[in-house]
Amino acid sequence: MRSVNIGIIGLGTVGGGVVRLIQRHHDDYVEHYGIDLQIKRACSRNDAEAKNLGIADIFTTNWQDVTSDPTIDIVIELIGGEHPATEIFEDSFAHGKHVVSANKALLGRHVEHLAKLANSHGVQIKCEAAAAGGIPVVSALEHDLVGNEILTIAGIMNGTTNYILSRMANEGLGFDEVLADAQRLGYAEADPTADVDGFDAASKIAILASIGFRTRVNTDDVFMQGIRNVSATDIEMARQFGYAIKLLAIARNTESGVDVRVHPTMIPATHQLASVSGAMNAVFIVGDAVGETMFYGAGAGSFPTASAVVGDVMSLADHIAHGKEIIPESEPFGHNLAIRDIADLETRYYIRLTVADKLGVLAETTKVLANDNISISDINQTKSEDNEACTLIYMTHAAKESDIEKARADLEALDSVKAVSSVIRIENIEAWNEGAFDN
Amino acid sequence: MRSVNIGIIGLGTVGGGVVRLIQRHHDDYVEHYGIDLQIKRACSRNDAEAKNLGIADIFTTNWQDVTSDPTIDIVIELIGGEHPATEIFEDSFAHGKHVVSANKALLGRHVEHLAKLANSHGVQIKCEAAAAGGIPVVSALEHDLVGNEILTIAGIMNGTTNYILSRMANEGLGFDEVLADAQRLGYAEADPTADVDGFDAASKIAILASIGFRTRVNTDDVFMQGIRNVSATDIEMARQFGYAIKLLAIARNTESGVDVRVHPTMIPATHQLASVSGAMNAVFIVGDAVGETMFYGAGAGSFPTASAVVGDVMSLADHIAHGKEIIPESEPFGHNLAIRDIADLETRYYIRLTVADKLGVLAETTKVLANDNISISDINQTKSEDNEACTLIYMTHAAKESDIEKARADLEALDSVKAVSSVIRIENIEAWNEGAFDN
Repeated sequence: MRSVNIGIIGLGTVGGGVVRLIQRHHDDYVEHYGIDLQIKRACSRNDAEAKNLGIADIFTTNWQDVTSDPTIDIVIELIGGEHPATEIFEDSFAHGKHVVSANKALLGRHVEHLAKLANSHGVQIKCEAAAAGGIPVVSALEHDLVGNEILTIAGIMNGTTNYILSRMANEGLGFDEVLADAQRLGYAEADPTADVDGFDAASKIAILASIGFRTRVNTDDVFMQGIRNVSATDIEMARQFGYAIKLLAIARNTESGVDVRVHPTMIPATHQLASVSGAMNAVFIVGDAVGETMFYGAGAGSFPTASAVVGDVMSLADHIAHGKEIIPESEPFGHNLAIRDIADLETRYYIRLTVADKLGVLAETTKVLANDNISISDINQTKSEDNEACTLIYMTHAAKESDIEKARADLEALDSVKAVSSVIRIENIEAWNEGAFDN
Repeated sequence: MRSVNIGIIGLGTVGGGVVRLIQRHHDDYVEHYGIDLQIKRACSRNDAEAKNLGIADIFTTNWQDVTSDPTIDIVIELIGGEHPATEIFEDSFAHGKHVVSANKALLGRHVEHLAKLANSHGVQIKCEAAAAGGIPVVSALEHDLVGNEILTIAGIMNGTTNYILSRMANEGLGFDEVLADAQRLGYAEADPTADVDGFDAASKIAILASIGFRTRVNTDDVFMQGIRNVSATDIEMARQFGYAIKLLAIARNTESGVDVRVHPTMIPATHQLASVSGAMNAVFIVGDAVGETMFYGAGAGSFPTASAVVGDVMSLADHIAHGKEIIPESEPFGHNLAIRDIADLETRYYIRLTVADKLGVLAETTKVLANDNISISDINQTKSEDNEACTLIYMTHAAKESDIEKARADLEALDSVKAVSSVIRIENIEAWNEGAFDN
């Protein structure tokens, strides 16, 4: 039996999990699949974790020792970031090695370059772990759902923000307070920017939309708005109107282009995504044939992410061990779909105004909204405790984002409006299924 | 480019969907994957559907015209049942053809024989459509989650019964009434036995447990109890106690063997499975590394099931079109785990008694339960409208199934007990995660 030789670069949370899973399953894989996985070389900044894992003998601090090792079949890249990850991919391909990676930041921006390069070297990139941790959504889009035109990919793809929003909703706390606690408990990083400002979710939806719609969606194409401005008041008001607020990543393949965005979103409190709590992830994939599907699980964490990495490794190893050729990475992007401007979005909105407590403010603000083509479905007015300002909530009928932006400026120009405190999109979830066949 | 040639046997609801999807995607598959799928031969009892689909020219009523056609690479078997489906598999293998099938009845009972035969002929069986319609759970177990030891597979795997239970819960109707309406609307078959008595779900959980635990689980190994005895009263009482009643298929890989069963189950009303309504399916898969995952979607229907069939066809076609060898079906069942007797189940129970409205009935019945080692957590007593009989509900602490069966007989022997009207298991869902790593 030919062994399948692995090199691993990055021995952090996920890397440690991968080594442990491969060690644990080694004999089982030999017995059940005839696959003898061998970790030949492991690279990290220092050897502390390699010692912990009992692999100090194959440790190096130089990643080129891994990518250039002629005995290695598969390189696992788990360092994240763009550099030297890009060079690790390139050098691995040049040496005829397949790459398994969890690097959403890199793949969300540079999958075109990397996939073309892999194709030209006859090797594959596998990136299940880059999209929703342990949940097999990349595999579903690449293989299982290939009988479908994919209409929508949407869901909760960032565990940190879902953890924060869940605690804000359950405990009535503010964003800053929960963030600080999440950092203390390890649910949020010391620098939480990539999570709370939406970049992490944007990278993931860019990867999934590129695969699902077979078109170029770059992270930089994704409209991105984080959760810093979501307040306890907004969450409570949403609850009163029958909604929950979640940070959703949404990609829709529409006739006017790819509608792709990450932002706090109001969804009906009875919707399945509303009950996804804590750090869990859930991804809806709607195909024209299969209809609505949902995939739920842990989007991060050592062993869940390692589970996805090992699944990718085994799919390559199955061929290598049995002497079967691997089909190279295909050319990416069969389509070249336009990306829709966020200004063209049409949906319902929640608008929270802080207004002076005086006569005529309702008349003034509703006049502005009407002038800007915005029709109102619900109004809620509450006095603040100091009796000096009121909170005025408008829920709109479907309106254009560009009109909402104009109305925001027009409202802010009114003397009676102290602030446009919050504008949150209400998602039209029924539209996710548009284009599915009747069954 | 070499075309990949398909023969299809069975042009019913699913077969028609498969032909339509392949016709629709043909050019797309050529362009994006370099795969030219050609339907070479189609078999059915009569040519009505073939004419509808525009494939009357390749129609036959003789399945051997398909299995023996030397130009055909892949046979799609969609006739269901054990015969002649078994012979179709066998003859296809003998002619070197791979088989894609949605036949849960056959695979739930005979996967061992068929997988060995496929292996010896160097071909594959693909059966994504046999387990949960369009939801890719077979693929997840076979490939994506291979870095895990699978601990639990459990969920709603039969759309007909979930539709019936959902309507009973929402409308307060009885089983017979909803069944008749479901038959009228096409949600239940004229002979609903396989669905409502649990056989369909038992076949699916047998297939999934065999793959997930890599052991032999036959449909006949599955403890099976349908929903005919679930009454509107039980559903209403469950609601009052904070539960929903669902027909669950459950397979747990425990230290004392495989616990595998299909029965009406009380689950907390807040659990995700409780909100799966209508004909939808949802499958929890718990792995030691990935933790809890859930896969949700349509478990039946023409296009959802066809989506799974086409996914399987394309995974084979990808290799055939590119001249790469396909790894043959592996020998099934690495393990040989014992099947746990239902008598050894320990869980909580809901017991509904119809009792005479007289003094001492509480004392008598609680004494029987205590004698049979059954400890009570909650009691609810309501008088019937005619004032002649009472409904007495006991919710138990964890008890042994064998003790419950003894208690049922002992209770029925009491003069004051008119009937043990209902006994429903309350699932310990926390136990599904037992054995998962901490993250």
